[in-house]
Amino acid sequence: MGNTTIKILAKELNLSVASVSKALRDSHEISHETKQKVLALARKMNYVPNPYASSLRRRVSKTIAVVLPEVADSFFSLAINGIESIAEERGYHVLIYLTHESFAREKAILNEFKSGRVDGILISVSGETCDSSHIKEVAAEGIPVVFFDRICEDIETARVVTDDFESGYVAAAHLIEKGCKKIAFLSTSTSLSISNNRMQGYKKALKDHKMKMSGHDIVLCGNDPDENYRIIKNLLKKKQRPDGIIASVEKLTAAVYLACKDLTLTIPKNVKLISFTNLPTALILNPPLTTITQPAFEMGKTAAAVLFTALGKSNNELKEETVVIPSTLTVRSSTGC
Amino acid sequence: MGNTTIKILAKELNLSVASVSKALRDSHEISHETKQKVLALARKMNYVPNPYASSLRRRVSKTIAVVLPEVADSFFSLAINGIESIAEERGYHVLIYLTHESFAREKAILNEFKSGRVDGILISVSGETCDSSHIKEVAAEGIPVVFFDRICEDIETARVVTDDFESGYVAAAHLIEKGCKKIAFLSTSTSLSISNNRMQGYKKALKDHKMKMSGHDIVLCGNDPDENYRIIKNLLKKKQRPDGIIASVEKLTAAVYLACKDLTLTIPKNVKLISFTNLPTALILNPPLTTITQPAFEMGKTAAAVLFTALGKSNNELKEETVVIPSTLTVRSSTGC
Repeated sequence: MGNTTIKILAKELNLSVASVSKALRDSHEISHETKQKVLALARKMNYVPNPYASSLRRRVSKTIAVVLPEVADSFFSLAINGIESIAEERGYHVLIYLTHESFAREKAILNEFKSGRVDGILISVSGETCDSSHIKEVAAEGIPVVFFDRICEDIETARVVTDDFESGYVAAAHLIEKGCKKIAFLSTSTSLSISNNRMQGYKKALKDHKMKMSGHDIVLCGNDPDENYRIIKNLLKKKQRPDGIIASVEKLTAAVYLACKDLTLTIPKNVKLISFTNLPTALILNPPLTTITQPAFEMGKTAAAVLFTALGKSNNELKEETVVIPSTLTVRSSTGC
Repeated sequence: MGNTTIKILAKELNLSVASVSKALRDSHEISHETKQKVLALARKMNYVPNPYASSLRRRVSKTIAVVLPEVADSFFSLAINGIESIAEERGYHVLIYLTHESFAREKAILNEFKSGRVDGILISVSGETCDSSHIKEVAAEGIPVVFFDRICEDIETARVVTDDFESGYVAAAHLIEKGCKKIAFLSTSTSLSISNNRMQGYKKALKDHKMKMSGHDIVLCGNDPDENYRIIKNLLKKKQRPDGIIASVEKLTAAVYLACKDLTLTIPKNVKLISFTNLPTALILNPPLTTITQPAFEMGKTAAAVLFTALGKSNNELKEETVVIPSTLTVRSSTGC
């Protein structure tokens, strides 16, 4: 007992050592019949793998992980559908892990992956993530990591994003065109790549249109709806209140509508609003909402396709690339149209 | 090599065989120090577990699975938050699996769990699920399964639900009180327990109020938004169109608003609407929406607590029980208030 090696199994079956190893790891490169043969002989000859060997940790789990901040956001729920549409074609399971915008949680989840639970990872980082060593450690284990939407810029890997800078610019330019003189930009993070890019686009549009901007025009909100409502209400109560608002995060939208209602400010007459959102209810809000609509489904689909290209290679190699899929402006009554 | 057994390790360490076995399975019942000692000796004595033994498949993964139809529904995203609030306290990971309302997918996912990937399962079944043998098989492997919201009635296990019959009754009674003479009930499934209970409540309210009902008043929609829009528009185009609508599924809400808008029917003047939804935007729709609000977060939290009670027992035993957490009616302008 215990003397059977992969080499012996391979010789008995007239297969290569690599094929037997892959069959034992349930690799998709090996046919079902061959796997059955290998497994049957392994049992018969009492083959026992070494559980401490790294090869076990690299077994093909036929599973990919999607690490997200939350699902109560239409962007992410649509992106998941895009990811799953590709994973299903490939016969892969998708596991969804939520960080709830916590860096500590994201680190704990990534740490979990080192044990080889999944074959590859799609990640959109938390609003708190400012250091990427936890992601680098997993990538160093040979597990491919593809970023989508919210990326880390200091890792050489594949990324699927939308044109956040341009969208921030387009949103601000649209409000300027509609006559806004003082435009506030609402955000929930100072560290996220997407937030910063949208903000830079907004700033550039203001500059190009020779509009002044005060430090108070960029408003940092958080994850608590009540607190966000309070912040936005205070902003709209000011003497120098904005006549245009860009909600760069979907969940800030309802707070703007509610604060305006409570202060008897009319959208779009007193305040014009544009939100980054994929909410299917944008059309039936009072008034209907002008949106920057991100290609959520397409981004999820593309990110998954990039990951599967890597998983199809023997070394799981991921090309360093950035795929940009543009967002679109959908104009409705909330900006006076 | 290969002759070291758990018995030998236990003797060397002066521990019980059960403790060594649990330590090797990374059980939460064993302290970190003991686990380290067991693992160190196992490595030193070249202990090799039998990978075909069922004990390996029962290792404590510190992971629970949540199997859901979709996340693009505010009930499920809030329920997930409730589940994760408890799992985090217990130091457990939560894996989310989506069935996309497909029975075949649900079966494939459950089948995956037989390999011991997770310690316990929380499930809300798909709209297509009419047979529960796939769930019974997993439960028979000793993996506890707790149902929440959408249940199967033919398995003896724990269930956390809301009062769907009563809510259906309350919704219909509210529309009757507001003067509706012809109330349509929109659903997306004929097999789901919750859909049927809501519908039975609606029927009972009509009967109690001596209102006639035609077979056409119960309208079956599906998962495709465009198709649902078409079905609802056709319903509202009829001569004998309803003056009250109960949308028993959140995603049907937008279609009712849009169809009314396109047919220049005013909510609530021409058609009164009440929806089963936890949408944070209900308040800012045009007009604000009357809802049956489910205790989504509480239901997730309770279901997770029930599961962890079972996981805390040596035999994972789950008491057969049904916990009912009531929903609430929130009255707004869409029903003329």
